[in-house]
Amino acid sequence: MSDQPPNSPPSGQAERSGKRRDRPLPTFAARETFFGTEKMANAEFSIAGIPFDLGTTNRAGARDGPAAVRRASRMVGGTYPDLWPDLYGLDIADVGNFSLYMGQLADSLDAIERQAMAYDHLLSVGGDHLVTLPLLRAASKRRGGPLGLVHFDAHVDTWAETFQVPFTHGTNFRIAIEEGLVDPKRMVQIGIRCRVEPEVWHWTSDQGVTIISAEEVHLGRPDEIAARIVDIVGTSGDTYLTFDIDCLDPSCAPGTGTPEVGGLLSWQTRAILTRLKGPRFIGMDVVEVAPAYDVAEITALNAAAVMAFYLGLQAKKREGPEPTG
Amino acid sequence: MSDQPPNSPPSGQAERSGKRRDRPLPTFAARETFFGTEKMANAEFSIAGIPFDLGTTNRAGARDGPAAVRRASRMVGGTYPDLWPDLYGLDIADVGNFSLYMGQLADSLDAIERQAMAYDHLLSVGGDHLVTLPLLRAASKRRGGPLGLVHFDAHVDTWAETFQVPFTHGTNFRIAIEEGLVDPKRMVQIGIRCRVEPEVWHWTSDQGVTIISAEEVHLGRPDEIAARIVDIVGTSGDTYLTFDIDCLDPSCAPGTGTPEVGGLLSWQTRAILTRLKGPRFIGMDVVEVAPAYDVAEITALNAAAVMAFYLGLQAKKREGPEPTG
Amino acid sequence: MSDQPPNSPPSGQAERSGKRRDRPLPTFAARETFFGTEKMANAEFSIAGIPFDLGTTNRAGARDGPAAVRRASRMVGGTYPDLWPDLYGLDIADVGNFSLYMGQLADSLDAIERQAMAYDHLLSVGGDHLVTLPLLRAASKRRGGPLGLVHFDAHVDTWAETFQVPFTHGTNFRIAIEEGLVDPKRMVQIGIRCRVEPEVWHWTSDQGVTIISAEEVHLGRPDEIAARIVDIVGTSGDTYLTFDIDCLDPSCAPGTGTPEVGGLLSWQTRAILTRLKGPRFIGMDVVEVAPAYDVAEITALNAAAVMAFYLGLQAKKREGPEPTG
Amino acid sequence: MSDQPPNSPPSGQAERSGKRRDRPLPTFAARETFFGTEKMANAEFSIAGIPFDLGTTNRAGARDGPAAVRRASRMVGGTYPDLWPDLYGLDIADVGNFSLYMGQLADSLDAIERQAMAYDHLLSVGGDHLVTLPLLRAASKRRGGPLGLVHFDAHVDTWAETFQVPFTHGTNFRIAIEEGLVDPKRMVQIGIRCRVEPEVWHWTSDQGVTIISAEEVHLGRPDEIAARIVDIVGTSGDTYLTFDIDCLDPSCAPGTGTPEVGGLLSWQTRAILTRLKGPRFIGMDVVEVAPAYDVAEITALNAAAVMAFYLGLQAKKREGPEPTG
Amino acid sequence: MSDQPPNSPPSGQAERSGKRRDRPLPTFAARETFFGTEKMANAEFSIAGIPFDLGTTNRAGARDGPAAVRRASRMVGGTYPDLWPDLYGLDIADVGNFSLYMGQLADSLDAIERQAMAYDHLLSVGGDHLVTLPLLRAASKRRGGPLGLVHFDAHVDTWAETFQVPFTHGTNFRIAIEEGLVDPKRMVQIGIRCRVEPEVWHWTSDQGVTIISAEEVHLGRPDEIAARIVDIVGTSGDTYLTFDIDCLDPSCAPGTGTPEVGGLLSWQTRAILTRLKGPRFIGMDVVEVAPAYDVAEITALNAAAVMAFYLGLQAKKREGPEPTG
Amino acid sequence: MSDQPPNSPPSGQAERSGKRRDRPLPTFAARETFFGTEKMANAEFSIAGIPFDLGTTNRAGARDGPAAVRRASRMVGGTYPDLWPDLYGLDIADVGNFSLYMGQLADSLDAIERQAMAYDHLLSVGGDHLVTLPLLRAASKRRGGPLGLVHFDAHVDTWAETFQVPFTHGTNFRIAIEEGLVDPKRMVQIGIRCRVEPEVWHWTSDQGVTIISAEEVHLGRPDEIAARIVDIVGTSGDTYLTFDIDCLDPSCAPGTGTPEVGGLLSWQTRAILTRLKGPRFIGMDVVEVAPAYDVAEITALNAAAVMAFYLGLQAKKREGPEPTG
Repeated sequence: MSDQPPNSPPSGQAERSGKRRDRPLPTFAARETFFGTEKMANAEFSIAGIPFDLGTTNRAGARDGPAAVRRASRMVGGTYPDLWPDLYGLDIADVGNFSLYMGQLADSLDAIERQAMAYDHLLSVGGDHLVTLPLLRAASKRRGGPLGLVHFDAHVDTWAETFQVPFTHGTNFRIAIEEGLVDPKRMVQIGIRCRVEPEVWHWTSDQGVTIISAEEVHLGRPDEIAARIVDIVGTSGDTYLTFDIDCLDPSCAPGTGTPEVGGLLSWQTRAILTRLKGPRFIGMDVVEVAPAYDVAEITALNAAAVMAFYLGLQAKKREGPEPTG
Repeated sequence: MSDQPPNSPPSGQAERSGKRRDRPLPTFAARETFFGTEKMANAEFSIAGIPFDLGTTNRAGARDGPAAVRRASRMVGGTYPDLWPDLYGLDIADVGNFSLYMGQLADSLDAIERQAMAYDHLLSVGGDHLVTLPLLRAASKRRGGPLGLVHFDAHVDTWAETFQVPFTHGTNFRIAIEEGLVDPKRMVQIGIRCRVEPEVWHWTSDQGVTIISAEEVHLGRPDEIAARIVDIVGTSGDTYLTFDIDCLDPSCAPGTGTPEVGGLLSWQTRAILTRLKGPRFIGMDVVEVAPAYDVAEITALNAAAVMAFYLGLQAKKREGPEPTG
Repeated sequence: MSDQPPNSPPSGQAERSGKRRDRPLPTFAARETFFGTEKMANAEFSIAGIPFDLGTTNRAGARDGPAAVRRASRMVGGTYPDLWPDLYGLDIADVGNFSLYMGQLADSLDAIERQAMAYDHLLSVGGDHLVTLPLLRAASKRRGGPLGLVHFDAHVDTWAETFQVPFTHGTNFRIAIEEGLVDPKRMVQIGIRCRVEPEVWHWTSDQGVTIISAEEVHLGRPDEIAARIVDIVGTSGDTYLTFDIDCLDPSCAPGTGTPEVGGLLSWQTRAILTRLKGPRFIGMDVVEVAPAYDVAEITALNAAAVMAFYLGLQAKKREGPEPTG
Repeated sequence: MSDQPPNSPPSGQAERSGKRRDRPLPTFAARETFFGTEKMANAEFSIAGIPFDLGTTNRAGARDGPAAVRRASRMVGGTYPDLWPDLYGLDIADVGNFSLYMGQLADSLDAIERQAMAYDHLLSVGGDHLVTLPLLRAASKRRGGPLGLVHFDAHVDTWAETFQVPFTHGTNFRIAIEEGLVDPKRMVQIGIRCRVEPEVWHWTSDQGVTIISAEEVHLGRPDEIAARIVDIVGTSGDTYLTFDIDCLDPSCAPGTGTPEVGGLLSWQTRAILTRLKGPRFIGMDVVEVAPAYDVAEITALNAAAVMAFYLGLQAKKREGPEPTG
Repeated sequence: MSDQPPNSPPSGQAERSGKRRDRPLPTFAARETFFGTEKMANAEFSIAGIPFDLGTTNRAGARDGPAAVRRASRMVGGTYPDLWPDLYGLDIADVGNFSLYMGQLADSLDAIERQAMAYDHLLSVGGDHLVTLPLLRAASKRRGGPLGLVHFDAHVDTWAETFQVPFTHGTNFRIAIEEGLVDPKRMVQIGIRCRVEPEVWHWTSDQGVTIISAEEVHLGRPDEIAARIVDIVGTSGDTYLTFDIDCLDPSCAPGTGTPEVGGLLSWQTRAILTRLKGPRFIGMDVVEVAPAYDVAEITALNAAAVMAFYLGLQAKKREGPEPTG
Repeated sequence: MSDQPPNSPPSGQAERSGKRRDRPLPTFAARETFFGTEKMANAEFSIAGIPFDLGTTNRAGARDGPAAVRRASRMVGGTYPDLWPDLYGLDIADVGNFSLYMGQLADSLDAIERQAMAYDHLLSVGGDHLVTLPLLRAASKRRGGPLGLVHFDAHVDTWAETFQVPFTHGTNFRIAIEEGLVDPKRMVQIGIRCRVEPEVWHWTSDQGVTIISAEEVHLGRPDEIAARIVDIVGTSGDTYLTFDIDCLDPSCAPGTGTPEVGGLLSWQTRAILTRLKGPRFIGMDVVEVAPAYDVAEITALNAAAVMAFYLGLQAKKREGPEPTG
């Protein structure tokens, strides 16, 4: 018989934080931090919000993503039948939002990188996808070399420029590759289906990047896709996970800036993510949640779940084999 | 050539109720009762609303589910290519909403049970999932023994307590099993994917309950799932259907209190339900529709369709073989 | 390296229209015409809005479909990995909205037909599905005979009458068949799952129409479905494409008047459409977008994408083989 | 001490209808009829829905007005400090929705008139404002002559035609005046602020109609406006009340088809209406509620309140002097 | 020249909390605590959320009020021209949400009272209005006697029972008066306009309570209303402020459970509140914010502003005369 | 008798543009340009969209303002009883959206100024309020000196910096005054009620700017406010009108980035604006419409109406005395 409250972290959290409460708070009353944690610093896994959206080319509002994901994340956590180890067994903190230079793109990217350098294992919630550039700069500096990259997205994000602008949420991975932050041979894009010029597509694959289109995911099976991903990034090198919520179909993630029809379904990304037990992940982000366009917080909930499954993978690594469910 | 108006019950309904109208009312003008019926009592199949939501642990508002499903149900009815027999051929009534003890949980559960005892074959629209407990109490009393249970849900709902509270929409089936209302060997859960402690999962399967996870549904085929269900509940014993709308993915059912990503798609539940021709269903409910979070009434429409397919199965039983479509 | 702005047409468009701009406009700033075009007449492909919704039997508001699709279409265009040829290579114009006799059904149908006669290759955005009747009248007149028809829909739309009314968005194809506008042997319906009387279903298939139910699409593969379609309409006769947005599941297309659960997913219609390279399409429409019920414009985006893929097929025809992606 | 439940009719209603309940239903659970009544025919005051919207020139959806007002009306009723007599003391019935000829304007107007003839004292919920034309035809026939008219609206609705169409929700009162259904000397419009040509304005006032602009209401006081109205329509002749919800400011009534900025505030219409104790009202309607554009049902709630205050005035007439509040 | 960032607290807050930041966070990035404070305990003014909604009789969802008001409160703070003293000059803390007995009304009321006892000067954000009962119990205990009460509301909330239930958000002040928690001679209700039985109205005024109807506010001037309030509660006795957000018109506060048309406008409550400099307030609450029904967070923003003006009044008391603005 | 269609420009517009149509398009079908005009250049009055929102400090999305206002503007136009002269008598063009340097603030301000220089009499639709800075730079250059300024707003917008950033939508008028673009003695702010430091307030008034708070408007009368404005800006010097939509109360304008409670009501701004017949306006803008937060386009409708009344004032100037209405 269980003495654990389901659906919400409060009781465990309360104990961990040494705080005494009358009663555990139900989900709807839990604190609006990531996974309801009351720890704000000095944890093994640090989760930060990055309310930046100067790089968006269509709908605005990714600045409000961190708040929405915090709220939705109260619904997720603990153990799941997909992946038994308990993410609440991990030492996590909500380190708050990064500070930014409002309306100033270059200074803000520098500020993000500088702040990211302070954390060992950082999970970030965007903000638009341009935030991944300074996050990768920091991560590759800390790790001393180019990283493997698991990149869920509808868009290749390897344009040389968009609307004649060099730094946007569409040029971030071109720059990352050119700066040597990631190893394109250990980089894989999953869910691609955007409008894209053949030159951009070819430049990308010519670098060694593997592109797995959304249609390939739909026509294949999650375990096959997961196996391809693990094969590409390997299990020994440092690897980063970047999850653009628009890799999901607009039906699953309406709350985003540049939705593309024909995207992945929630169950597919869940099934793929929970099978990525091999790679050595050293950080991750989930980006492009624009709550003003969300409905019933389903986009934010998907974003929170991505973080939960990532943390579950980390817990799995240290807790050993799963119970026979 | 057809003389039946499509998309709405009015003409048939009007005839059945003996009421004379100038013209059949189109869908948008039909009465906001279940399937537009004008019959309010004394039918073979009674449909009731149960506007109860004291058991919810996250978002509120399931109290408004019955009204939303009534409205959406005007779009559904008649005959479908999945299941030709005409549900309008059945004798149905909208018996209104059950009365409740506002803000008082225990008294309300008693009141639900007492009112449910009055009906031979009851279809209920919740309300949160805790309403199924008194509905099962009534059904098993009327039927004289434990029932088979086909249980669509994202959550196992077999916690011993949630947030230290013993009666919630997360403990209902633990209690039902412990009270002997259902036969766990003839109980099957479909769509499970919630956060759940291993102890709760094991307790459930140790009772004999079969858990079919959402991922199993996604990786399998509807006819296989349907066959497993029929195999578990059998075709001779009394069986109850309980359909928590959150078994659907949040993209299909945003209007619910505790959405979980990775859920079933509408076509899957439709394909499974319409293949459950064998079991002897003696009652059903659809629960957890929270209209304040719905969009374009798509959640309510799914709930209404579940009832329509259930009624179609009943019609099928008595009308014989389907036309070769 | 690409010098094309992604995600939006402005730069190419600006050049084509001979207009000089400081800078290309990003997606969010592009003109709200179909695909951001600034051409308004005299193009090879003419795109018109038809803000007509007198034929709707449930929710109103398809009159606002053209505006919503114009807005959403700024996100789509160019080249896609599914179908490389560039739709911006085509000569397209947004010819504005057709004028109508407000509140007067018969006169409006005549006006639509009369206006449609003016265009060689017309793409139309409804409005409700009844607009397809006068569009087919015009197209078959211009082409001198019955047309093949690829018809995506949740509903058969071959009722003899709906609610005792002979001209609605549910009787349009019965009339089209009876008037000889389409050749039922070369007519195929994809996505059907509505409530329908057996008589109507049988009348339809008795005419020679092929009905591919939504469930068949879910249980099959897109390439098989596409092959069946091509087989039915052939590659030599003139063929028209009519796409009722409600063929999609309500999760993908909430913004429509008569949603039906269990529908096609965006990736499926995309995968099928982009494989229809063989047929000789001479016109198309996308109908039943009701923006008041849409969320985050996802329904409109699906509608715009359907047009984009149709145009991509046209571009493909003249631009030859695709690059090896 | 009170034994009356506040905020909802159930207990009183239940008693009146002779139906026995366990407990009174709280507001959220009450039946979705007008004021929660369970009486459906043969009352002194009959309330009907008219789901007609073929006359709208901008946004669609007034067809769904009756359902929304029914739902909202559960919140209102009983006695108010503005007007003590209890509207539940009156004998009222919800007679359902009028049947219509879908998509056919002329036949529908005839059908509305024919059905309206059946009731002594009819309250109607539109539907667009064109429904008032057949309602006035019926009322003036039954009463044997032209009626006084209290007309709340943003628009004069006395155009000779709109967009070259003679029968719309903008020409209704021109026709009513020309047909002699109302006596323009006893007709007063309150809240006018629309775009209007001087010719139309002058034609209206030349007939003898009094126009009280929205600005006059804002700059004056409700008791003065009420006194002017009573002065115009008198207290002896039969008078009809027509309330277009767009007389309210869009902030108070966003859920309507042709909103105009600068409108009346809820408190103003409430304060004016409750002071109209003198006139001999023989029927009323509230029109142009378009729920698809409403938020949190505030528009519908205003519509329901208008009906409640109208009924309160009727109750006042027969129940005598109010208590000293 | 100002070196203070407008529209948001971060810089001042950061300094007060001793935390060093790169840059002040703009409003959209500020922490989602009350007024963005980072202090969580041991302040002169403690602000708590009370996510309780078991007492609601119509729409659910007040449980989510605290979160919404926290978010909106980031927009407000500092100094206003109405009331110059800086609320950031005050020592405030966000003490989190009170814990509750989920689904259990009586235990929850006890828990609220017990927790409230811990704070000297408590500001609470509901939750439904029933929370004010235990808050008053705690406050009167701490203060040793009955309190004066300034009560903004649409409803009198002095029913003996609602729907035969004794403890709801409609009976709270009957109980408070009967328990001697408030001194009815020093109690004033502002904004009343609900449906109410004469008996309830008379009972209330017979106790000595002053009722100022919404219409009186509309027909009067804010300074007169403020003067009446101060006259009733006096300036020497302890006084509590309870602000039910539904005292505002639904146009200003759609996000609430039991909206009533004809309510106060935002400017009126602002103008009245900022003039209440005399009374000795010892605590306050703002209740009945139901975010699921809010639009663009305007209801939450009004709630946050009420707290800000209350705090401004406290700051005013100690900071002396205002600058000549 | 009128032969003008009400509520929409199409017929007149069509005639002016020389285009022949079957029938005038009703409002819902009219082209989505400003006031439905088909003229795109070379008019006396040019209307431009400026989709810029890099200056926002709270909610994003003003980039979508121009599109929303275009759409809403189809509802307004022609003649109003407040101001008879017909704005359609004026020569107006929709010159499209200004091009911008995406994500780059300084370059974008330059680009706006450069493009604005091309027009004699420019009406602009923002975008956030920072766009007014380059618009004033262009206007004062073209006019050869500082301008009078009628400034409707909730905020003074004269901060020296916001969040340590010098160029935002809160510093625009500090800069404009310091650059000598406006004459502070001929500058008046109406509707102010924001949080503001005394230093900023005093700096502003010390420059000679007149601040009329929102409360002054509420306690006064529109004609008095209008007279004060005319008195300040005079009738001989060039004057610019800038209308921040957040001067309106959030109930009237929820769709904006930094809403402040207690704002002006629609009728008040309408009554004030239509009385500003004296000043010599040489340009105007309406800014801060953020459609993602709007409901039922009421914010956009207010913005469109402001432009219509401004144009009506221009028409009035040349058309002489109004008819006696």
